[in-house]
Amino acid sequence: MTSSSSGSLDASVAARLKRSSDGLVPAVVQQHDTGEVLMLGWMDDEALARTLATGRATYWSRSRQEYWIKGETSGHRQWVREVRLDCDGDTLLVKVDQEGPACHTGRRTCFDADRLTVPGHADD
Amino acid sequence: MTSSSSGSLDASVAARLKRSSDGLVPAVVQQHDTGEVLMLGWMDDEALARTLATGRATYWSRSRQEYWIKGETSGHRQWVREVRLDCDGDTLLVKVDQEGPACHTGRRTCFDADRLTVPGHADD
Repeated sequence: MTSSSSGSLDASVAARLKRSSDGLVPAVVQQHDTGEVLMLGWMDDEALARTLATGRATYWSRSRQEYWIKGETSGHRQWVREVRLDCDGDTLLVKVDQEGPACHTGRRTCFDADRLTVPGHADD
Repeated sequence: MTSSSSGSLDASVAARLKRSSDGLVPAVVQQHDTGEVLMLGWMDDEALARTLATGRATYWSRSRQEYWIKGETSGHRQWVREVRLDCDGDTLLVKVDQEGPACHTGRRTCFDADRLTVPGHADD
Protein backbone atom coordinates (compact mmCIF):
# COMPACT_ATOMS: atom_id res chain seq x y z
CA MET A 1 0.00 0.00 0.00
CA THR A 2 2.92 2.31 0.56
CA SER A 3 6.33 2.09 -1.03
CA SER A 4 8.04 1.61 2.31
CA SER A 5 5.95 -1.22 3.58
CA SER A 6 6.43 -4.22 1.37
CA GLY A 7 8.34 -7.41 2.14
CA SER A 8 7.34 -10.93 2.99
CA LEU A 9 7.51 -12.53 6.39
CA ASP A 10 10.68 -14.35 7.36
CA ALA A 11 10.13 -18.07 6.69
CA SER A 12 11.15 -19.14 10.19
CA VAL A 13 8.64 -16.74 11.72
CA ALA A 14 5.91 -17.76 9.28
CA ALA A 15 6.50 -21.40 10.20
CA ARG A 16 5.95 -20.66 13.90
CA LEU A 17 2.79 -18.61 13.39
CA LYS A 18 -0.57 -20.29 13.98
CA ARG A 19 -3.32 -18.34 12.28
CA SER A 20 -7.06 -18.54 12.82
CA SER A 21 -9.27 -19.73 9.98
CA ASP A 22 -9.32 -16.21 8.53
CA GLY A 23 -5.51 -16.09 8.45
CA LEU A 24 -5.19 -13.67 11.34
CA VAL A 25 -3.41 -13.58 14.69
CA PRO A 26 -4.44 -11.27 17.55
CA ALA A 27 -1.82 -8.70 18.47
CA VAL A 28 -1.88 -7.33 22.02
CA VAL A 29 -0.42 -3.84 21.98
CA GLN A 30 1.33 -2.59 25.09
CA GLN A 31 3.09 0.67 25.90
CA HIS A 32 6.69 -0.49 26.32
CA ASP A 33 7.59 1.49 29.43
CA THR A 34 4.38 1.92 31.45
CA GLY A 35 2.96 -1.52 30.69
CA GLU A 36 -0.47 -0.13 29.73
CA VAL A 37 -2.41 -2.44 27.44
CA LEU A 38 -3.43 -0.01 24.73
CA MET A 39 -5.52 -2.04 22.26
CA LEU A 40 -5.81 -5.30 20.43
CA GLY A 41 -5.28 -5.46 16.69
CA TRP A 42 -5.16 -8.25 14.12
CA MET A 43 -2.27 -9.16 11.86
CA ASP A 44 -1.85 -11.49 8.95
CA ASP A 45 1.59 -12.46 7.64
CA GLU A 46 1.84 -9.35 5.52
CA ALA A 47 0.88 -6.98 8.35
CA LEU A 48 3.44 -8.62 10.63
CA ALA A 49 6.10 -8.44 7.92
CA ARG A 50 5.38 -4.74 7.39
CA THR A 51 5.41 -4.10 11.12
CA LEU A 52 8.80 -5.78 11.52
CA ALA A 53 10.25 -4.16 8.41
CA THR A 54 9.07 -0.61 9.05
CA GLY A 55 8.90 -0.40 12.85
CA ARG A 56 5.40 1.08 12.47
CA ALA A 57 2.57 -1.05 13.80
CA THR A 58 0.46 -2.24 10.89
CA TYR A 59 -2.76 -4.22 11.23
CA TRP A 60 -5.41 -5.86 9.14
CA SER A 61 -8.76 -4.18 9.57
CA ARG A 62 -11.45 -6.84 9.76
CA SER A 63 -14.22 -4.28 9.27
CA ARG A 64 -12.64 -2.43 6.36
CA GLN A 65 -10.77 -5.46 4.95
CA GLU A 66 -7.59 -3.53 4.38
CA TYR A 67 -4.17 -2.91 5.90
CA TRP A 68 -4.01 -0.10 8.35
CA ILE A 69 -0.90 1.67 9.59
CA LYS A 70 -1.71 2.92 13.07
CA GLY A 71 -1.64 6.71 13.17
CA GLU A 72 -1.51 7.14 9.38
CA THR A 73 -4.56 9.40 9.45
CA SER A 74 -4.82 10.33 13.15
CA GLY A 75 -1.13 11.00 13.71
CA HIS A 76 -1.30 8.75 16.77
CA ARG A 77 1.49 6.51 15.59
CA GLN A 78 2.88 3.42 17.24
CA TRP A 79 6.63 3.00 17.07
CA VAL A 80 7.42 -0.65 17.57
CA ARG A 81 10.05 -1.51 20.14
CA GLU A 82 9.62 -5.23 20.38
CA VAL A 83 7.43 -8.04 19.04
CA ARG A 84 6.99 -11.33 20.84
CA LEU A 85 5.23 -14.52 19.85
CA ASP A 86 3.52 -16.59 22.53
CA CYS A 87 4.19 -20.21 23.49
CA ASP A 88 1.54 -21.52 21.10
CA GLY A 89 2.49 -19.24 18.22
CA ASP A 90 -1.05 -17.91 18.00
CA THR A 91 -0.79 -14.50 19.71
CA LEU A 92 1.56 -11.56 19.29
CA LEU A 93 2.64 -9.06 21.92
CA VAL A 94 3.67 -5.78 20.34
CA LYS A 95 5.48 -3.36 22.62
CA VAL A 96 5.29 0.14 21.26
CA ASP A 97 5.88 3.76 21.99
CA GLN A 98 2.43 5.27 21.47
CA GLU A 99 2.10 8.87 20.32
CA GLY A 100 -0.97 10.42 21.94
CA PRO A 101 -4.11 8.38 22.54
CA ALA A 102 -4.23 4.83 21.21
CA CYS A 103 -8.02 4.75 21.08
CA HIS A 104 -10.11 6.32 18.32
CA THR A 105 -12.35 7.74 21.07
CA GLY A 106 -9.48 9.97 22.18
CA ARG A 107 -8.79 7.98 25.33
CA ARG A 108 -5.30 6.78 26.06
CA THR A 109 -6.25 3.10 25.79
CA CYS A 110 -9.20 1.23 24.34
CA PHE A 111 -9.90 -0.24 27.78
CA ASP A 112 -10.41 2.99 29.70
CA ALA A 113 -14.19 3.36 29.50
CA ASP A 114 -16.01 0.14 30.31
CA ARG A 115 -15.25 -1.63 33.55
CA LEU A 116 -17.30 -4.69 34.48
CA THR A 117 -18.11 -5.51 38.08
CA VAL A 118 -16.10 -8.15 39.89
CA PRO A 119 -17.46 -9.03 43.34
CA GLY A 120 -15.11 -8.05 46.15
CA HIS A 121 -13.11 -5.63 44.06
CA ALA A 122 -15.65 -2.94 43.25
CA ASP A 123 -13.74 -0.29 45.13
CA ASP A 124 -10.19 -1.06 44.03
CA MET B 1 -18.91 -27.81 35.37
CA THR B 2 -18.45 -27.00 39.04
CA SER B 3 -21.14 -26.15 41.52
CA SER B 4 -19.68 -22.69 42.10
CA SER B 5 -19.41 -21.57 38.52
CA SER B 6 -22.87 -21.26 37.05
CA GLY B 7 -24.79 -18.11 36.24
CA SER B 8 -25.66 -16.30 33.06
CA LEU B 9 -24.11 -13.11 31.85
CA ASP B 10 -25.71 -9.83 32.86
CA ALA B 11 -27.94 -8.68 30.02
CA SER B 12 -26.38 -5.23 29.78
CA VAL B 13 -22.92 -6.76 29.44
CA ALA B 14 -24.13 -9.35 26.93
CA ALA B 15 -25.62 -6.55 24.84
CA ARG B 16 -22.27 -4.73 24.65
CA LEU B 17 -20.24 -7.81 23.76
CA LYS B 18 -19.30 -8.35 20.12
CA ARG B 19 -18.35 -11.96 19.54
CA SER B 20 -16.49 -13.50 16.62
CA SER B 21 -18.29 -15.98 14.40
CA ASP B 22 -17.45 -18.77 16.85
CA GLY B 23 -19.05 -16.85 19.71
CA LEU B 24 -15.77 -15.97 21.38
CA VAL B 25 -14.02 -12.82 22.52
CA PRO B 26 -10.25 -12.61 23.11
CA ALA B 27 -9.28 -11.90 26.71
CA VAL B 28 -5.92 -10.23 27.33
CA VAL B 29 -4.71 -11.27 30.76
CA GLN B 30 -2.49 -8.87 32.68
CA GLN B 31 -0.87 -9.04 36.12
CA HIS B 32 -2.70 -6.24 37.93
CA ASP B 33 0.29 -4.66 39.70
CA THR B 34 3.34 -5.25 37.49
CA GLY B 35 1.53 -4.76 34.18
CA GLU B 36 3.00 -7.94 32.67
CA VAL B 37 0.88 -9.36 29.86
CA LEU B 38 0.61 -12.97 30.94
CA MET B 39 -1.39 -14.71 28.22
CA LEU B 40 -4.37 -14.44 25.93
CA GLY B 41 -7.42 -16.60 26.47
CA TRP B 42 -10.85 -16.85 24.87
CA MET B 43 -14.20 -16.37 26.54
CA ASP B 44 -17.77 -16.92 25.49
CA ASP B 45 -20.68 -15.46 27.45
CA GLU B 46 -20.67 -18.35 29.90
CA ALA B 47 -16.93 -18.15 30.57
CA LEU B 48 -17.21 -14.41 31.18
CA ALA B 49 -20.22 -14.91 33.45
CA ARG B 50 -18.35 -17.55 35.46
CA THR B 51 -15.27 -15.32 35.66
CA LEU B 52 -17.29 -12.39 36.97
CA ALA B 53 -19.31 -14.54 39.37
CA THR B 54 -16.45 -16.55 40.84
CA GLY B 55 -13.47 -14.18 40.59
CA ARG B 56 -11.50 -17.05 39.05
CA ALA B 57 -10.46 -16.59 35.42
CA THR B 58 -12.35 -19.07 33.28
CA TYR B 59 -11.83 -19.56 29.56
CA TRP B 60 -13.14 -21.55 26.66
CA SER B 61 -10.50 -23.90 25.30
CA ARG B 62 -10.67 -23.86 21.52
CA SER B 63 -8.50 -26.97 21.25
CA ARG B 64 -10.31 -29.04 23.87
CA GLN B 65 -13.73 -27.45 23.30
CA GLU B 66 -14.45 -27.12 26.99
CA TYR B 67 -14.45 -24.58 29.80
CA TRP B 68 -11.22 -24.26 31.63
CA ILE B 69 -10.64 -22.67 35.02
CA LYS B 70 -7.08 -21.38 35.01
CA GLY B 71 -5.01 -23.23 37.60
CA GLU B 72 -7.62 -25.92 38.27
CA THR B 73 -5.10 -28.67 37.53
CA SER B 74 -1.77 -26.79 37.71
CA GLY B 75 -2.54 -24.77 40.83
CA HIS B 76 -1.43 -21.65 38.98
CA ARG B 77 -4.65 -19.83 39.62
CA GLN B 78 -5.70 -16.41 38.43
CA TRP B 79 -7.60 -14.28 40.91
CA VAL B 80 -9.52 -11.66 39.00
CA ARG B 81 -9.19 -8.07 40.15
CA GLU B 82 -10.82 -6.26 37.29
CA VAL B 83 -12.39 -6.91 33.89
CA ARG B 84 -12.64 -4.26 31.22
CA LEU B 85 -14.33 -4.24 27.85
CA ASP B 86 -12.75 -2.30 25.01
CA CYS B 87 -14.26 0.55 22.99
CA ASP B 88 -15.60 -1.80 20.32
CA GLY B 89 -16.89 -4.39 22.78
CA ASP B 90 -14.87 -7.11 21.10
CA THR B 91 -11.91 -7.56 23.46
CA LEU B 92 -11.64 -8.08 27.21
CA LEU B 93 -8.81 -7.00 29.49
CA VAL B 94 -8.65 -9.19 32.58
CA LYS B 95 -6.44 -7.92 35.37
CA VAL B 96 -5.49 -10.73 37.69
CA ASP B 97 -3.26 -11.76 40.52
CA GLN B 98 -1.41 -14.73 39.03
CA GLU B 99 -0.19 -17.50 41.31
CA GLY B 100 3.11 -18.84 39.98
CA PRO B 101 3.79 -19.07 36.26
CA ALA B 102 0.96 -18.24 33.86
CA CYS B 103 2.43 -20.31 31.02
CA HIS B 104 2.10 -24.08 30.74
CA THR B 105 5.82 -24.14 29.87
CA GLY B 106 6.60 -23.00 33.41
CA ARG B 107 7.58 -19.50 32.35
CA ARG B 108 6.02 -16.52 34.05
CA THR B 109 4.25 -15.34 30.89
CA CYS B 110 3.42 -16.95 27.56
CA PHE B 111 5.46 -14.25 25.81
CA ASP B 112 8.82 -14.88 27.47
CA ALA B 113 10.43 -17.22 24.96
CA ASP B 114 10.08 -16.00 21.39
CA ARG B 115 11.19 -12.50 20.51
CA LEU B 116 11.10 -11.41 16.87
CA THR B 117 13.63 -9.00 15.45
CA VAL B 118 12.70 -5.37 15.03
CA PRO B 119 15.34 -3.31 13.17
CA GLY B 120 16.96 -0.66 15.32
CA HIS B 121 15.89 -2.22 18.60
CA ALA B 122 17.79 -5.51 18.61
CA ASP B 123 19.80 -4.54 21.69
CA ASP B 124 17.08 -2.95 23.81
